[in-house]
This record gives sequence, structure tokens and C-alpha cells, in this order.
Amino acid sequence: MPGARRAAGLHRPHPSSPEEPPAQEDLLLAAAYVSDAQYNRNVPFETSPQAVRLYHFYNHWTMRAATYFFIWGDLALALFEEPALFPLPFLATSIAEVLCLTAFSGRLVHFAKVTPQMVFWKDTKNICIVVTIVLTLIDLIIYGSLEAVNIHGVRWSRALRPVFLINFPESRQIRRAFRSIRNTLPDILYVFLLFIFSMLIFSLMALKLFGDRGLKTVEGSPYFTNILDIAFELYVLVTTANSPDVMMPAYEFNWWYSLYFITYIIINTYIFMSVFLAVVYNNYRKHLKNEIRTLAYLKRHKMIEAFNILKVKVGTEFVVKEAQWRQLAKIVAPDISSSHLELLLRISDEGQKGYVDKMNFLRLADLLNIQVVTINIKRHPLEAWMPRVYQSSPSLLVQKVVRHRIFVWVYDVIILINAIFIALDEKNPLISYAEWLFLSLYIIEILLKLYTYEPRAYFGRKQFWNWFDTLIIIAALVATVANTTIQSARKYNSQQILDIVLILRILRLLRIIVSIQRFRVIVTTLINIGPTMLTFGGLVLVVYYVFAIIGMEVFHGKVHFFDPSSTSPDALVCGNPALKDSAFARGRYCRNNFNDLAASLILLTELTVVNQWHVLADGFALVTHQASKLYFIGFHVVVVILIVNSVLTSLPRRTQAPFESCYDISPFQRAFLPAYQSLILAPLFLVGPEFESLYACFSRPQRCVLVVVSLLEPRARNSWGDSPAPGLPCHIRAALATILLILAQERPSRGRGGEEPLRAACPAPSEWNM
Amino acid sequence: MPGARRAAGLHRPHPSSPEEPPAQEDLLLAAAYVSDAQYNRNVPFETSPQAVRLYHFYNHWTMRAATYFFIWGDLALALFEEPALFPLPFLATSIAEVLCLTAFSGRLVHFAKVTPQMVFWKDTKNICIVVTIVLTLIDLIIYGSLEAVNIHGVRWSRALRPVFLINFPESRQIRRAFRSIRNTLPDILYVFLLFIFSMLIFSLMALKLFGDRGLKTVEGSPYFTNILDIAFELYVLVTTANSPDVMMPAYEFNWWYSLYFITYIIINTYIFMSVFLAVVYNNYRKHLKNEIRTLAYLKRHKMIEAFNILKVKVGTEFVVKEAQWRQLAKIVAPDISSSHLELLLRISDEGQKGYVDKMNFLRLADLLNIQVVTINIKRHPLEAWMPRVYQSSPSLLVQKVVRHRIFVWVYDVIILINAIFIALDEKNPLISYAEWLFLSLYIIEILLKLYTYEPRAYFGRKQFWNWFDTLIIIAALVATVANTTIQSARKYNSQQILDIVLILRILRLLRIIVSIQRFRVIVTTLINIGPTMLTFGGLVLVVYYVFAIIGMEVFHGKVHFFDPSSTSPDALVCGNPALKDSAFARGRYCRNNFNDLAASLILLTELTVVNQWHVLADGFALVTHQASKLYFIGFHVVVVILIVNSVLTSLPRRTQAPFESCYDISPFQRAFLPAYQSLILAPLFLVGPEFESLYACFSRPQRCVLVVVSLLEPRARNSWGDSPAPGLPCHIRAALATILLILAQERPSRGRGGEEPLRAACPAPSEWNM
Repeated sequence: MPGARRAAGLHRPHPSSPEEPPAQEDLLLAAAYVSDAQYNRNVPFETSPQAVRLYHFYNHWTMRAATYFFIWGDLALALFEEPALFPLPFLATSIAEVLCLTAFSGRLVHFAKVTPQMVFWKDTKNICIVVTIVLTLIDLIIYGSLEAVNIHGVRWSRALRPVFLINFPESRQIRRAFRSIRNTLPDILYVFLLFIFSMLIFSLMALKLFGDRGLKTVEGSPYFTNILDIAFELYVLVTTANSPDVMMPAYEFNWWYSLYFITYIIINTYIFMSVFLAVVYNNYRKHLKNEIRTLAYLKRHKMIEAFNILKVKVGTEFVVKEAQWRQLAKIVAPDISSSHLELLLRISDEGQKGYVDKMNFLRLADLLNIQVVTINIKRHPLEAWMPRVYQSSPSLLVQKVVRHRIFVWVYDVIILINAIFIALDEKNPLISYAEWLFLSLYIIEILLKLYTYEPRAYFGRKQFWNWFDTLIIIAALVATVANTTIQSARKYNSQQILDIVLILRILRLLRIIVSIQRFRVIVTTLINIGPTMLTFGGLVLVVYYVFAIIGMEVFHGKVHFFDPSSTSPDALVCGNPALKDSAFARGRYCRNNFNDLAASLILLTELTVVNQWHVLADGFALVTHQASKLYFIGFHVVVVILIVNSVLTSLPRRTQAPFESCYDISPFQRAFLPAYQSLILAPLFLVGPEFESLYACFSRPQRCVLVVVSLLEPRARNSWGDSPAPGLPCHIRAALATILLILAQERPSRGRGGEEPLRAACPAPSEWNM
Repeated sequence: MPGARRAAGLHRPHPSSPEEPPAQEDLLLAAAYVSDAQYNRNVPFETSPQAVRLYHFYNHWTMRAATYFFIWGDLALALFEEPALFPLPFLATSIAEVLCLTAFSGRLVHFAKVTPQMVFWKDTKNICIVVTIVLTLIDLIIYGSLEAVNIHGVRWSRALRPVFLINFPESRQIRRAFRSIRNTLPDILYVFLLFIFSMLIFSLMALKLFGDRGLKTVEGSPYFTNILDIAFELYVLVTTANSPDVMMPAYEFNWWYSLYFITYIIINTYIFMSVFLAVVYNNYRKHLKNEIRTLAYLKRHKMIEAFNILKVKVGTEFVVKEAQWRQLAKIVAPDISSSHLELLLRISDEGQKGYVDKMNFLRLADLLNIQVVTINIKRHPLEAWMPRVYQSSPSLLVQKVVRHRIFVWVYDVIILINAIFIALDEKNPLISYAEWLFLSLYIIEILLKLYTYEPRAYFGRKQFWNWFDTLIIIAALVATVANTTIQSARKYNSQQILDIVLILRILRLLRIIVSIQRFRVIVTTLINIGPTMLTFGGLVLVVYYVFAIIGMEVFHGKVHFFDPSSTSPDALVCGNPALKDSAFARGRYCRNNFNDLAASLILLTELTVVNQWHVLADGFALVTHQASKLYFIGFHVVVVILIVNSVLTSLPRRTQAPFESCYDISPFQRAFLPAYQSLILAPLFLVGPEFESLYACFSRPQRCVLVVVSLLEPRARNSWGDSPAPGLPCHIRAALATILLILAQERPSRGRGGEEPLRAACPAPSEWNM
């Protein structure tokens, strides 16, 4: 956004003299730039001291959390509005909605105070929000007054609510995903038109080939006699939902006709859908590249602005003094530990000259994104408390046994036996007792592990699998106790609690994943791409919400669900005679309706899965009008063709790197993989040689320091326009080396001496074991 | 294959003196090397003159065609064997099979004579063929003798027939695809195991949650009470084929339970299937790279061997004399035109020194792969015959009109009106007459175009769209005439002919594609990836054939199809009482059976489409045994997870380049795109700047030469280890420039003069129109 440059250029308060230290305002302004660079925010803000302070407040996490709270509150209102899952009077929901709107307006006013007015009104995001707020208010007033005179209106503005989720600056990722889909549209349009054309040609052919034959479908209705019906059936066939039923009457008539359908499926399902995938994929690649380039440019630009504010002249070059640099880092990352800060300074001021030059200063935003986690492997508390006992030979034997892989295998076998017991009937008292046996075995395992390994290290912040293992066992323990209590109490027999207990007891079988390494790698990779998937989750949520609201307004109350025990004749046709003899009623689909938000979302999920969607579409077309099939076709096109394809094309590229690297660094992933987090829009990048060198330094005889490093935003990697080679860029590599060096000394002293060659002191990788 | 080197090293007849021209045998040997390099054949052959001659004969197209003929004949035998589509006695089919086996043995013996014995017996391909031939003979004898005493045996060796298709050296591409899938297996295995594990955990949960509730499915059978049934249902849910039916009973009981199914679908359908895709994709990429590198190495190696045979010493360097080079090229490509040969020599002997140096010689295989098509745009025959009339102002007006885009639009509107007429009822005589009107309009269009454009250029070898357009109109003409004849004759009313007539009449609407450029681009791209898809088609065929044969042996005769008009009560249960009340019988799926090869293949196609496959599997499990579900699950795993994923992952990479380049060079694709052919295992590569420079040279005022160049094997691009930059490599670019230069002079004279700067003489691209 060029606005940033302009705004900054206009008001920047130049330091009065190159020697004088910059004022607090300058530091705040520079911190705002650095922080924006760090989080890739591109907000053009005013540079007056007051605006900068407001801007810091605007970006404060409490304000952001409050905004999200109101956005989600606003979206959740659909749960309480007619048709409601938990009905509330209109007055209550409208007051809540006005409250949310007030909060949004407040947020927007805050933003307007921060950003130049010209820029503010040119930004479509802001205009979208303003228009939506106004429209919602108008809708509320109209609906309220109609209600007052007992006319039922339509709350159409509810479908606009996701606008808030998309358009606040915080939802950058969702917006980016939307943009990438929008960019795909022009290219996909022609393929879609050709696809429709081919479908129509085939429809015409089907009409001519089968229309006059007097064939009947399985239901006994005429087969392929109306061109519109044929087109719909053939569209459904593209989704494969009515294969092979749609073909059977013609196939029965003559086996030759099956070729017509096979040709259709090959052309329109396989080839065209692949082309859609290809087009989405290519566009994704193309636009991703541009986007990353722009982001890198803007980031560098912001860092230069920050540098220009703080620079002082030393000798011939402009630099930033160490003191200013420290203050700046403290403002940008208030929670930074002093040793971490020291470390970053050591990287930035390589020559220990007391100042940071321009090139090193520009790295600051990326350096702050490096997450450093230190795990000090200390002596076991028991060892400190009673060294004799802990070091005695029986105790050492126990430790050796626990560390041995046979220990793991024995427990794998125990889990398998447990699975068989769970599958068997639990009413047998013997099996019920066996439960307790298994539980105690698991608890003994945990205790033994805590005895062998240092507890603080075992439950370290990033020791995902240990936490997972322990939590599962605790859950199972709670579940079994609860189960016994409930069974003995007998009278209190809540369905939900029993179900949860059941699920918890079965989930303990997941422990088997922990002990099979390949499984652990796959699961960790999947968990790590979770945040990326959440972006698409946000996208899907927006589309679902809009479709659910429209669906509830259009189809609400048309289909009713009767209790399965009901004997009313209406129950068979879902309370609507139009559904008589329909596949919808025959499939007992009455519960698939739009009568509240939860039911609507479940129905939309079923439509996303695609199978039988035509039965659902037909059902709702029967109770309203044939045109409502367009709603279902629209949903299919948007969700399946656009969004699912986007996810599919982006997923392989993302899972790729971790899979490759994991297989290479197998003894390491326990420590490393949980550190990959929030990797959005760029592939992971940790690879071979860098790991080797880290590896060699990880073990020191007694006081070993294990360092887990991850770059939260791997985009950092390309942001300096460096080569996109698969290794870590040079400055990050240097950073890692320094981090290791300093942390290895545990308490970083600012003394310049003592940099003994660390590599030489390290044992060979083969000696390293954990 | 290092054997090639060894074999060659042992027997190579060195030229007796560096000055003496090499003997005919040496030329043949060198030609064999060059030819192998050109087609990427890696056959280690003996280098004795006799073996080389045999090897040339082995690679002759007649021999290859004969081999394919026998392979397809062998495969087609399944059409005539029990259970047969066209029954033949066992004696006839067995004689045919023995004939095929003899042919295969002959081919193998021929190969054994060509290749060193050690190498021959180390190659698993040959051993596979020998073993299969022996097994087939044994099976034939056993089956024959059993038949003789009236015991019905199983012709199990029929499932081995695709071995011949895979293992003859001609099927390199199919084998490569197989290898790429085999390489994926180890990685996919762990994901698959984890997937199975997750499915079992969910099954156990379902058993505990729903097993005791006494719920019923829509059919009234107990819901989720048996762990094996649950596992099958949940596997089916992964394929989405039973969604949402499988969820409805639980959902009706409590809406909360839908979350169980949604979680399951998200984890097992979306996430795991994406991971499969990711693993296949990554492996494909990894192995493709290695494979290409190896091929490039082998190619270079073979060219060096050829060079060493023919080299003579001139001055300080070894070279190949022009005469030898010509003879060699003539042997390798006997059909090469003399101007084409001249051209290649001009490229290889840049300095016109009378010999080709080593570097240029090594290019020969790639140069021979460059396809050169010359279209000489000459004067219109009418212009030559009666220049006055053709150049008169009414004639020129006609030509101007035809060239104008409004002419195209008018015909687009005519086609649309025609479509509406076709959709209307054709029994109306007015519409029937309209048909003739449309047809004559189309024929007038073609005639006008032939009047305007030079006919030989219009129907040039590579003018795909003109041919397409004309053929469609001729077909429509034939169809309409046939239709009228049949309708007037009345008595002869063959179904098939009427259907074909109908289809032909509708296909003429495809002409609309010809006139919308974007559509043309998409279709051309699709046609161009056709050959690649054929490789996968071969792969699919192999799998289908094996499964069809097994299916026919196992399920033959279990399900019968009765004519729809049949009133027999058996017709409702497909002639098998076990199917009573099954979804299979209710869906009237009786025709989906394994009673002959065609029906089996159609059924397997339906299984590939996935929808309702569980109904088919259930049906066949009912008439045989529950274990036969494994057959269907196996088919799903092999075809959908392995093969379809392979196609999906490879397709986007292949469609990508043409899409990108086509959009850039839009006015050109009519001429260029049909020239892309058989692009296997590598993306297309024609891009911007190179086209620009070609473009500028394409039009010369009167005697214009249009050159269409394509590299048949774009792998050539990387085979010298050059940079994989997206442009054409330098030596190819030079080749193109020279080709243009020479062809522009139409009759290439070996004279060294006359290379006037061509670019200057060319009109600007904007003046170029066609």
C-alpha cells in the first residue's frame, strides 16, 4: 500500500541532530513500523505522536480479541433468532446485534483516527463495513416495525454478517484466500462455459436418443423426456451422485447405450474436473508468487522507514545505537526475555561495535519471528534429593528398562489387548475388572517415565507427544471412574455423559500412534498444517453461513422432522404431502432441513460431501419450486469446485516439505516437529545440511542445552529476494549458530571473550541419544 | 543399462585407420545407437554385424506392429471364451492363444539373438514373459484335458495376459507409470495403515455408541451392531458413497451424533485422502527427476558410442565427415526429405567445414526429434486459372466478407438457431425442411472458405480445426441424407443406424467451439494431453482386465439379467433368491454383472465412479460370500487411491504450460497447437520471446512460408544438463532460426551466399493475418 509511504513521508519528525538520541515518540513510531513488518500488516497510519499511540492501542491484543468476540457473537446470533435452535425474543437478539454494531463502529472510528482520512475512505474494506452496518440497522428497524404490527418480514441483512469477519484488517488470511479464488474466476469462467456447453450437447443427445423410447426409471417416472430435467440429471452425474442409477434404464434397453454415459463421465467428470483443478492450481501458483513479492517489498520498505527514524551518523555510515535498538525491541516485543534480547543483539551487532548497521537493522522483523525455546536438561530432582538411592543399581536397572525399546513394545501389546477387551461386551464383570488392570498399568508407565526422565523436561512446553500421552491416560482414568460411579448410582443415567465416557475410553487406543514413529510423523505433519486449514475453515464458514441464512429464510418450516417413534402418517412424508413417494421421504431424510442453524449447517455439510445431494435438492424443490435446485447447484459450484479444489491444490505443496524432511531427520522430530506452527501460504523449509550442523552441537556431556528453533513465518525466508534455495538463508543460519553458542553457556554474559570453538567440543552425532 | 557399454566395448570393430571411411556395418551399428538415443530405448544389444542387422529388424515398425497385434489379439480372446460375449468353441480360442504364444516366443527368441545372453537372463521382463508363456501352456493343457472329461476348470492364466502388454520393451511408458506407482507404495503404506487404524478406532466407537440403542436402518435391519459391518460401512463412507444415509438413524436419534460422522468424514475422507494425494504427488516428482536424469545420461552415452565408431581425425580433433553423417541420418530416418536433411546438416556443421564435430554430433538424436512441417502458401488455383475473375471487385468483396469476423458471428447465430430446431420436435415437416436449409448454409460456408483461402493450405496436414469443421459438416450431411432415406423407406428401421445419425446431427453443434477462440484453446490443450492420458489408459486397462477376468471366474452366472418386459418373478431378484429385498435388486442393477467381458468392464467403470459401489459389492456378497467384498475394496484401493490420484497429480503439471502459453500467443494457436504431440512425462515448454521472433518471420508478402515446429520429446530440452529455464535451449533456438532461413528460400540450395537479414525483410507481426 503506497499510502503508508506517503503518510509517513509527510509527517515524519526528523531527529533534530544526527547525534541526539531520538525521542520517545520516534521510538514508538519506529516500533509501529517494525511491528507491522513483523506481522506483515499493511496499514497506512498517521505519524503524529498521538496517532501512533492510538495505533499501538489499536493493535493491542485486547482490542483485537474484543473485535473477534463481537464478530463471533454477531454470527452466533443466528442460533437465537427465528428459526432458532435456542429461541430468544426479537428484542433480546436485536439489542445484542445493536451492541455488536456499536462495537464495530467503535473499532472503525478508532481505525479512522489512526489512518489518514483520504486513505480511509478509499479502502473498500472500510466502506463495506460502514455500508453493512447501515443496512443492518435499516433491516432491524423495518423488521422491528413490521413485527410490531404482526407482519412477518425477512431478516435479509443477516446474510451480510460474514462481511465483518472478512473485512476487519485482522482477517488478512481469509481475505487472501478469497482474493486467490477471485483471481481464478476469469480463467475458470471459460472452462465452465465450455463445460456447460458440453453438458447441453449431451442433454440434447440424450433427449433424442432416449426421449421417445418410453423408458421408465426405477421409480416408474418417465426417463429423459424433458431437456431441463436431463440437464439437471447430467449435472448430478458430473458429481457422480446418481451413478449408475441414471444409466440403468438405458443400459437395460441396450448395452450399447452405456457407452454414452461412460463417454459423458470421462469427458465431464474426469477431464473437466481435472481441468478445473489445473486452472485453480496454476492461478494459485501465479498469484502466490506475486503476493509474496509484494509482501517482501512492503516489509523491507517499512524497516527502512524505521531505520531512517532512529539512525544516527557514526563515522561515514548511518547506524542505530545499541541503546535505541534495545528500547525498540522491548517496545515491539514486550515479553522478550533479556537473554533472548541479548542474543538478537549479538546477531545484529556482529562486530560488538555498540551499534547496529542498516543491513542488520533490516533483519530485526525476521529475527523477532524466530521462536527460541530453551529446554535445560537438568539433574533429576530425585537425584538431587537422594542421590544414593537414585544411582543405586536397582534404580539404574529400572531406568535402563524404561529407556529400552522392548518397554515400548510391551506397552503396545498391552494396548492391543485392551482394544480387544473394549470391543468385547463390557457387561461381563471380568472385563470390567480388567479395565482397572489396564488403567493401573498405564499409570505405572507414566510414573516410571517420570522416574527415569527429568519431569520438567518431560512436560516441556513443546513436548506434544508426552502431554498427549498423559492427557489420554488421565481422561481414561476419569472416564472409568465416572462410568463406575454412574453404573453404581444407577438412577442418574445421562446420555451425553455416558457417551463422552465411552469415547474417552476408546480414545486411549490412540496411544499406539505415540509409539509408532512413522505414525507420529504423519500426525504431527497433519497437526502442523492445521492452522493453514483453519484459514480455509474460515472461508468455508463464511460461505456456509451465507448459504445457511438464505436456506433458513427460503426453506424454513417446509420439511418437518417427527420423532422416530411417532406414528403420525405425516411422519412418512416429513409433514409435507408434496414429498409423497419422493426419494427424500423414502430415505427418511426429514431431519435434513433448514429449521435451525445447526440443522442447516449439517445439511450443508452433507451437500459438501456431495453424495445424494440431488435427493436433497429434489426434496426441497418438491416442497417449494423447481427453481430452488439452483440454490443447491450454486452451493455445489461454490464449495466443491472453487473451495475444495483450492484446498486440494494447496495441500500437497504444504505437506510435501515436512514429509520429506521428517524422513531424513527421524531421530529428531520428537523435538522439532511440534515447533512448526502457523505456516501459512508457504511451504516448510527445514532440510538436510542445516540440521546436521545443529545436530552436532546438541549434546554436551552434563549440562546439555536443547534448542528448538522455528521460523514462525517462513515467508521471512524469501523476503530479502535471496535465492529460493532449499536451505536456510545465510543470516538465519548465522543466527542459529549464535543462539546455540549463547544458550550453551546458559547465562549469557556480555563478556566478549569465551567464544571457544563450539563444534570441536561437541560429541559426534552418533553419540547423541535421547 | 551398463550392459550396453560392455557389449559395445567388447566387439566394437575399430575403423582400421582414422582416414579410411567406416564400413557399412559400422554405420549400421552407429545408426542403432542414434536410433536408440532418439527414442530413448535402452536395449543392450550385441555389436556383431549380424546382431546389429537383427536389431534393426527387431525395431522395424512391422515387427512392432505385429507384436502389438498379437498382444491385443491375446487380450481380446476373453471376448470369445466362456463366459463369452460372442461364444466360440474352446478349440478355436485355444488355437488362437497358442498362435499368440508362438508369436511372443518368436519375438523373445529374436530379442535373445540380439542381446547378450547374460543380460537377457538377468532381465526380469524376459523372465516374466517366459514364465507367463509356460504357465499359460500348462493352464491350457490342464483345462483342455479337464474339459475332455467334462470337468469344468478355471482358466486362471487369463489374468496373466496383461503381463505381455507390460513386459515387451515397446510398452516403456506403461511400465514407467507402473514403476512410479510401485515407488509410491512404501510411503503410502504407513499412511494407509494409520488410516485403517483410525477407521478401526471409529468403528469401535460406533459399536459402543450405537450398538446397544436398537436403532434400525431405513431398510429395517439392525444399525451398527457388528464390528465388521461397521468397518465396511465406514470404509464406504470414506468413499462418500453411503453419505448421508449411514448417518440418518443416529442423527434422527440425537442431532448431537451427526458430529461423530462429520468428524469422521473430515478426518478420513478429506484429510487422509489429501494426504494420499500429497504422498503420490511428492513421490511422482521425486522419481520423475531421477528418471529424466538417468535417461539423459544414457542418451548422451549412446551418442558418444556412435561418435566413437564414426570418428576420423581432422587436424587435432576427432570429427565425423559430412558424407558419413548423411548416410547415418538416412539410415536412422529413412523418410527424411532431402531439404530437411540439408537443414539438419546446416545446423550441425555451422561453419560449413564439411564435417561435424563431437558436440554437434551429440545433438543429432534431438535434432531428429524436431518435427518440421512446411506449408507453402501458394497462389489460389482459381487465381492462376482465371486471374481476372478472381481479382475482380465482386470476388474480392466476397473474400473480404469471408475473412471478416462478422461472417463468423453470423454462422454462430445460425448454429444456435439450428440447436433450437434440433431440440424441437422433428416430426414437424417445417423443421424437417429447415434441416436442409441449415445444411446448405454450412456447405456454402465451406465453399466460400475454399474460394477465399488456398485449398491445400486450408486442408494442410496440421490444420486440425479446418478438418474438424469440414468433417462435422460432411457427417451431418450424410446423417441427414441417411435419415431421409430411412424415413422414406420406412420398412428398414435399424436402431443402431438411426442412433448414429442422431448423434452425428447433434455433433455439428460442436462447430461453435471452432469459432470461440478460448474454447478452441482449451479443447486443443485437452487433445494434446491425450497421448499422456493414453499411457494411464494402458495402465487402467491392465488393472481392469485382471479384475474383469477374476470377477468373471468368481461371479459368473450368479446374477442374471432378464429382459425388462419379462414378467417372471425371478426378474425382480435378478434370478437369484439371495437378492430378495436387497438394494441391488431394488435398484434394478441386474444388468451389472460379470457374465461377459463387456458387462464386466462396464461394471468396473461404475465401480471407478465410486457412487453406489457398496450396493454392487453388497449384492455380489449376498450371492456368494461376505468375503467377496474384499474384491471390491481391493479394486477401489488400486484404482481410485493409486491410479486416479496419479492421474490427478500429473495432470495439472501437464496442462499448465499449454494454458499459460496459449493465452500469450492467441493469434497463433490455430497453426501451432495441433503440432504438440505425444508429450510424455514433461510439461510443454513453448513460451513468450521465442514465439515473438518466429512470429516476426512468418509472413512474407507473396511466397510466404509458414513453419510449424514442435519438439516431439521435450525431454530433449533437459537432456544436456542445461539450465531448466523456461525458454528453448540455445541450440534449438539456433536450429529454428536456420530452419526458417532455409525454408524461406523454399528450395534449399547449398550455396553459402544469400543469407540476407531475414528479420528486416519481415513485415511487423500486426500485418500478419490468416
